[in-house]
Amino acid sequence: MNLDKLQNWLQENHQDIALVSNPVTIAYFTGYEMEPHERIFMLLVFKDADPFVFVPALNVEEAKNSEWNGDVYGYLDSEDPWALIGDKIRQRTHDDKYWAIERDHLPVDKYQKMHSQFPDADFSGNLTEFIQVLRLHKTPAEIKKLQAAGAEADFAFQVGFDAIRTGVTERYIAGQIEYQLKLQKGVMHTSFETIVQTGENAANPHLGPTMNQVKPNELVLFDLGTMHEGYASDSSRTVAYGTPSDKQREIYEVNREAQQAAIEAAKPGMTAGELDAVARDIITKAGYGEYFIHRLGHGIGKDVHEFPSIVGGNDLVLEEGMCFSIEPGIYIPGFAGVRIEDCGVLTKDGFKPFTHTDKALKVLPLKD
Amino acid sequence: MNLDKLQNWLQENHQDIALVSNPVTIAYFTGYEMEPHERIFMLLVFKDADPFVFVPALNVEEAKNSEWNGDVYGYLDSEDPWALIGDKIRQRTHDDKYWAIERDHLPVDKYQKMHSQFPDADFSGNLTEFIQVLRLHKTPAEIKKLQAAGAEADFAFQVGFDAIRTGVTERYIAGQIEYQLKLQKGVMHTSFETIVQTGENAANPHLGPTMNQVKPNELVLFDLGTMHEGYASDSSRTVAYGTPSDKQREIYEVNREAQQAAIEAAKPGMTAGELDAVARDIITKAGYGEYFIHRLGHGIGKDVHEFPSIVGGNDLVLEEGMCFSIEPGIYIPGFAGVRIEDCGVLTKDGFKPFTHTDKALKVLPLKD
Repeated sequence: MNLDKLQNWLQENHQDIALVSNPVTIAYFTGYEMEPHERIFMLLVFKDADPFVFVPALNVEEAKNSEWNGDVYGYLDSEDPWALIGDKIRQRTHDDKYWAIERDHLPVDKYQKMHSQFPDADFSGNLTEFIQVLRLHKTPAEIKKLQAAGAEADFAFQVGFDAIRTGVTERYIAGQIEYQLKLQKGVMHTSFETIVQTGENAANPHLGPTMNQVKPNELVLFDLGTMHEGYASDSSRTVAYGTPSDKQREIYEVNREAQQAAIEAAKPGMTAGELDAVARDIITKAGYGEYFIHRLGHGIGKDVHEFPSIVGGNDLVLEEGMCFSIEPGIYIPGFAGVRIEDCGVLTKDGFKPFTHTDKALKVLPLKD
Repeated sequence: MNLDKLQNWLQENHQDIALVSNPVTIAYFTGYEMEPHERIFMLLVFKDADPFVFVPALNVEEAKNSEWNGDVYGYLDSEDPWALIGDKIRQRTHDDKYWAIERDHLPVDKYQKMHSQFPDADFSGNLTEFIQVLRLHKTPAEIKKLQAAGAEADFAFQVGFDAIRTGVTERYIAGQIEYQLKLQKGVMHTSFETIVQTGENAANPHLGPTMNQVKPNELVLFDLGTMHEGYASDSSRTVAYGTPSDKQREIYEVNREAQQAAIEAAKPGMTAGELDAVARDIITKAGYGEYFIHRLGHGIGKDVHEFPSIVGGNDLVLEEGMCFSIEPGIYIPGFAGVRIEDCGVLTKDGFKPFTHTDKALKVLPLKD
């Protein structure tokens, strides 16, 4: 159990209390998913007492009916949550001197408010790295969810390809994808806003979808993903609508070669930086290095972006069970953009993608 | 200009540098909207030098083509962003001793990394309250966007009401709403995940939408909103599908009376707590006080939840130009939930709602 690992970590690191504040991390430990917006949602884990979650009053019933079997305490909007949570902690334990927090998540004001409840405590303990490392290696159950999310992304590509025709907007195509995901697959959340980019819009990796209309003989870039039982998919494909020009075909094929080479090269024991270089060298040698303006990939799990970061200079050694994206891109301002992305799991036999939509350049016939 | 106000605030409060880290606040000051995920996106404003924004390299072009006319600096994934941003600041100014930060947003680790670039600086300045107060009073241009977002919410209710029939799921109805918003209104983002709740599910204010199917003679609760040019709508309606029972009708009418009374009572000069009490007293006198488990309302603007908080004990005096929700609710576990919510602007003539969907209990005929 992950919570046991956190409790062990507290004991080994001479910490008394872990204050978990990132809703995704809380879900990872408790199975209870909730977005508190500006209200307060925290998991308190103790060296040698039972953990509890602290939620807004309007979420208490939901939390009690969730996978979480421990105590749930709520606060009303009209109450001081910090005094309440302080009392609950003091009732739980007298060991409240050494605290570890999620430094990459907890905002300065919440940190100070909690600290003011325990003014003599030492809050310098850092949970972030421990949690990142814990989440880095996925269990078979987690991989199954990531594969299921990948299958939903494959379905989404098909919907998107079918929806392309002259004159429809990027936003229309994105809407079709999200609607069919909800309707046919029961997908409640995409893992981020569905990206559909036509022509030169695709040279801005994070733009859109806009009201730009599909025109003949453009490349169309899709980047999309779903959430499946709390786990994300994230995948990109680029297709030609009508006959591609030589230049369009060239950047596609260079990028595809780079992606394929990285997929084949990925092995336990190499560093993240070395894997980035496999794809980057191919694109650079083809003369497009300056147009590959982001890292090769990112980890995936409960978050669509998590550790490891597959980037030049990262000496992290890749190991079995790590899940990440391989997604080189070439973005030529004023012309077009290409990205091909698969997430997958690293095994002793190499990288096993979660998405399987064909990557040979797909040429869609023009439709009015 | 809001940026001038921030610069004046720095001067008046003897601060040298404002570090703005919340993407919504950055958009408020610059007109440039972007979600950086785990990457770094910051606006630096100086007492007496030109401001700049700092973005990931892949967003530099987009930022330069946005409404923002100031400098844009980027960093590659392979670079150390903190060293880079530190250099840019030192090139800009020698006045780098007193810093003000968004304490409600900046995570402890980013705070420490920036501080380590300026180890002798004093980071105790707090931008949060100044920004909350600045955003509290909406300009006519902002109110126009909030009204346009409200009209989209009214459209969404109509789609939702039309989609209700026996056997369809909450998720199907939510999907129809989001699809038609995208298709017919070009709505790119909802302001939060569309909530559709049937029967007893509605007693959990933030649950769903689930795969629960619509059954005859249940109440169905909608809570939805859109983003229109960076401004949010947020509105709730509850309807009866088939003939309502006496008890269903009673909680609906009590809640409607409470909402209407609060709308009519809202006036500049009263406190937020007094307004909450207007609705709460009616619900309490009718015997349902224990089932109204949240505050009466929240501010709305670029964020779907912002200041002011309309809650018991809040002595903030309501003023013209403040925009907020009035949304009493009655939630009876195992039975049903009712919420009626309008956001609007407070004027000298009272509260002017942004949404206009009728609030007389709507009884929808059964459909197979």
